[in-house]
Amino acid sequence: MNDCIFCRISEGAIPATLVHADPDIIAFRDIDPQAPTHVLVIPRRHVGSANDLEASDTELVGRLVVVARSIARTEGIAESGYRLVVNTGADGGQSVGHLHLHLLGGRGLAWPPG
Amino acid sequence: MNDCIFCRISEGAIPATLVHADPDIIAFRDIDPQAPTHVLVIPRRHVGSANDLEASDTELVGRLVVVARSIARTEGIAESGYRLVVNTGADGGQSVGHLHLHLLGGRGLAWPPG
Repeated sequence: MNDCIFCRISEGAIPATLVHADPDIIAFRDIDPQAPTHVLVIPRRHVGSANDLEASDTELVGRLVVVARSIARTEGIAESGYRLVVNTGADGGQSVGHLHLHLLGGRGLAWPPG
Repeated sequence: MNDCIFCRISEGAIPATLVHADPDIIAFRDIDPQAPTHVLVIPRRHVGSANDLEASDTELVGRLVVVARSIARTEGIAESGYRLVVNTGADGGQSVGHLHLHLLGGRGLAWPPG
């Protein structure tokens, strides 16, 4: 886990611009933003990807989405709209091996989504 | 609710190619697929968008993700990778006013995601 950059952000060992923190979930701004608002919402617990989710993780995963929805409100993009994205594996474009939900908004997002 | 195309699919009033059905959630193939696998996972209950989620909906939303993960396995794209996408509002590109999770895979998904 010490090698996981998102675990280290959760521990405070690597700095990030946090926009949410609770005992189970943190959210911080993407260092390479693809939209005016681009935030990553992650579980503090190390979960490698969506493939590693257990049926018992549904509450945690649902909370990732609800936290993202709340951040959309505080960022002022709830009404204009936003996109939530979870990448898994190579074809999905997953770049960090710790489950994370992208929240993107503040501009029109095109289709297809990549 | 009768005007909602996804509610009507859930009721069986409009045909769709289902790949999952349980008492709370169904999944079916997108009629305008953007990837070799392109499936929509939706709650049967009418929820307009992510903005309409209540804190009590976390279990349901988490199950949408876990169902999508399971479909990725049966579609044979769990290891190659996939992207999960939820669009909300105009900037997000939401085209049907009933919460739905896109599962896309079977090809490399580019970045940014739209």
